[in-house]
Amino acid sequence: MTEPFASNPRDPAAYADRNRDRFVEELKAFVRHPSVSAEPRRKANVAHCAQWLSAHLRDIGMPRVRVFPTPGHPIVYADCLRRPGAPTLLIYGHYDVQPPDPLSEWRVSPFAPAVVGERLFGRGASDDKGQLFAHVKALEAHLRTTGLPLNVKCLFEGEEEVGSPHLRGFVERNADALVADAAVVSDMKILGPDQPSIAISLRGSLVLELTVLGPRTDLHSGNFGGFVHNPLQVLCEMIARLHDRHGRIAVPGIYDSVKSFDAAERLRMRRTGPSDRQLLADAGIVAPWGEQGFSLYERYTIRPALTINGITGGYQGPGAKAVIPARGSAKIGIRLPPGQEPDDVERLFRRYILRISPPSARVRIRRLMAGPPSEVDVAHPAVRAAAAAYVRGFGARPVLTRLGGSIPIVETFNRILRVPTVLMGFALPDAAVHAPNENLHLPTFHKAIATCIAFLAEFAAIERRRPRSRNGGFSPSRSRA
Amino acid sequence: MTEPFASNPRDPAAYADRNRDRFVEELKAFVRHPSVSAEPRRKANVAHCAQWLSAHLRDIGMPRVRVFPTPGHPIVYADCLRRPGAPTLLIYGHYDVQPPDPLSEWRVSPFAPAVVGERLFGRGASDDKGQLFAHVKALEAHLRTTGLPLNVKCLFEGEEEVGSPHLRGFVERNADALVADAAVVSDMKILGPDQPSIAISLRGSLVLELTVLGPRTDLHSGNFGGFVHNPLQVLCEMIARLHDRHGRIAVPGIYDSVKSFDAAERLRMRRTGPSDRQLLADAGIVAPWGEQGFSLYERYTIRPALTINGITGGYQGPGAKAVIPARGSAKIGIRLPPGQEPDDVERLFRRYILRISPPSARVRIRRLMAGPPSEVDVAHPAVRAAAAAYVRGFGARPVLTRLGGSIPIVETFNRILRVPTVLMGFALPDAAVHAPNENLHLPTFHKAIATCIAFLAEFAAIERRRPRSRNGGFSPSRSRA
Repeated sequence: MTEPFASNPRDPAAYADRNRDRFVEELKAFVRHPSVSAEPRRKANVAHCAQWLSAHLRDIGMPRVRVFPTPGHPIVYADCLRRPGAPTLLIYGHYDVQPPDPLSEWRVSPFAPAVVGERLFGRGASDDKGQLFAHVKALEAHLRTTGLPLNVKCLFEGEEEVGSPHLRGFVERNADALVADAAVVSDMKILGPDQPSIAISLRGSLVLELTVLGPRTDLHSGNFGGFVHNPLQVLCEMIARLHDRHGRIAVPGIYDSVKSFDAAERLRMRRTGPSDRQLLADAGIVAPWGEQGFSLYERYTIRPALTINGITGGYQGPGAKAVIPARGSAKIGIRLPPGQEPDDVERLFRRYILRISPPSARVRIRRLMAGPPSEVDVAHPAVRAAAAAYVRGFGARPVLTRLGGSIPIVETFNRILRVPTVLMGFALPDAAVHAPNENLHLPTFHKAIATCIAFLAEFAAIERRRPRSRNGGFSPSRSRA
Repeated sequence: MTEPFASNPRDPAAYADRNRDRFVEELKAFVRHPSVSAEPRRKANVAHCAQWLSAHLRDIGMPRVRVFPTPGHPIVYADCLRRPGAPTLLIYGHYDVQPPDPLSEWRVSPFAPAVVGERLFGRGASDDKGQLFAHVKALEAHLRTTGLPLNVKCLFEGEEEVGSPHLRGFVERNADALVADAAVVSDMKILGPDQPSIAISLRGSLVLELTVLGPRTDLHSGNFGGFVHNPLQVLCEMIARLHDRHGRIAVPGIYDSVKSFDAAERLRMRRTGPSDRQLLADAGIVAPWGEQGFSLYERYTIRPALTINGITGGYQGPGAKAVIPARGSAKIGIRLPPGQEPDDVERLFRRYILRISPPSARVRIRRLMAGPPSEVDVAHPAVRAAAAAYVRGFGARPVLTRLGGSIPIVETFNRILRVPTVLMGFALPDAAVHAPNENLHLPTFHKAIATCIAFLAEFAAIERRRPRSRNGGFSPSRSRA
């Protein structure tokens, strides 16, 4: 890592500016790892990605870096705790990615990242490798110039896309070591390349698998069609009863716990949030759908949504096969706005499915993932520091937004560590996150690095005036994976 | 092919009895070919199977054997036209098989056939290689002993399981060569090992693919869930509207053309056909389903049935993926009882789907397969010959049955060649046709060979008293594939 000469070699922002091209090349190396946490055959790839990331954290000068194995994929931890009087920031990100299928719709191979125009295409480019990497490069810029102005702990997991099954336990067992004054998560969108935003709420997520079992074995549809209740038909008939005609979820009681927002907040959302027209364009659809009485922005942020993420059963190959299949199943994702708890919603869902199951089929429900929704305290110093940092990185004040996605770790930090989290996103609305042709807008990536550099300084400055929390960090004997 | 000595070396039935074990070994060699017509990667396997079959027909002494290529899979033809005054029988069968999936449910590898107890397990053992082979072995028994008592044409296709897309055209182009006094098809079940049956009606089949297109690309279910009409949800909602609450197909007008059977025929069916209890046991289900007012036997033979043969869309891998998929599709099979025509039913289906499609999604319908239903004239001499043959082969008079499956070639023979077809089945109800663990009951296989031997003699004897039809057969210059 040789640096060219420059006018101000001790300024972190100038350092980042001088190293733009190298940063992009390093990100490409990061994206090249097919760290798909959902696919068992990718287990070694995920592990290699963790090793790459930990080596990179050592290279940039983080004094302590550790890889913690879990029963699933490893957790990468790093810290630099050389400022005893200064605040401590916990930086969270994830290096695992969504499965890349359908592969045929990608313009580049998803794990052979390539720059086209101003964008880097590749699975994970925005979610979350690019956003995680903006923080890593900000740490490097400080470490290689002025040194870090505060204490930093990095917690990078490899199981976010499968619901972080081992992260909560890890945080619980190592709460003393992970404690901080605030956490920052960058795993979300902003409104546009010139309009940053800070998220103030997230929806939770509950994913259930609904399986319908019919005959013991596949049957010939000619010899049996007419008197056997086809499990795929039963599955469709039950899924059709999950919404009413007005786009509302038909599960009784599911809206009871949803938090109501007052007229002032709904007005603020209407004024600052994306318009219906913008959202239709983002989604690439012509006609909206969903719960009447709410804007499209409200529908995907402060209202629940039930989506069929996948469905499978019977013959799916080319041509036809005359079969009544023995079973069919669907993956059903429910997004939980502030107020809802996954356990409650699952109980209501199970009760309803039991009620609408026909006697001619057996039904099974399995939980695949669950995490509660979150709200952020907008008065917290970390939020103010983030706002100031965005002004320096983007030249614009951030808008406070509400998000439809889920980041369960935010509630884990809140409930276990009692640490508030600031949600600083850097992905653009058209980043194609979780979809083919996921991409990262590179000018925004460089602004993100500048923002992260500023955030470290701003948070150090604001927090220096407040009393310090205890700050353990990991000691080899105390940490448990 | 050496023959052991026996008491009556000139009797075809005694010949078959002496060669039982060899016949089974030869059938295993036939089943070993993975001639899955629906799977493009199996094209060479289907072709090899056709070559194997044609070589075998030469080996047993058929004087003329030809393999006709088609744009899909080849047609194997053989004839022996050495009895100018005798009638001509057209023997139809198919050497292609259904896809074997789900593989994990097979007790043997589907293309490594093995005898377990009295049964030969393997894909195609009953449908239709075993039944086709019973005729081939009957031909051999005559050819190796007394010679054939009549003229025979064999027409064995390799595309039955994908709707015989090239057979009708082949028959049309070669109608003069294929003409016969009757055709025989053995591709169906009998009632039990001691109770043979002759089928007198078949349902037609119409298979349509219904595709729902939503957003241009897969979307993140957190960022978009709540205002995008999920195409899998739309698909399920439309499929749920294909039946009413009483198990009837909800497509308006679809019952209008269905033939009504009089009280006498329904009583005969009730007395001779399988009971509801027997059919539930065959299907391996506890509770029946379907159109009220009809026995289960009637529901799958003389009433239409709409079955979902397969459904696919979104993420189907392990774990969860937070996605609103861009599309979903289902293969929908409609079985057409006597009276219905595929074109009419498709028109009604398309009209209904158009009516129930929501504005928030686009819908496409594609025809995968179509064939009309058939009825057999029970007074035809070939049916009487078949009945007499079953008495000799099984020691029991056959019951006249109605079938739920589809054999489009029967209507092709009827409409193009003006040849009536006799439907002589040899598969048992638990043969697991089109399902995992397809099998052939070997004692029934040997009875089938004896029946086919007798059928050739009985039909020759009955038809000798009737005027002869013209009988071209293929000449090299006239035949067209």
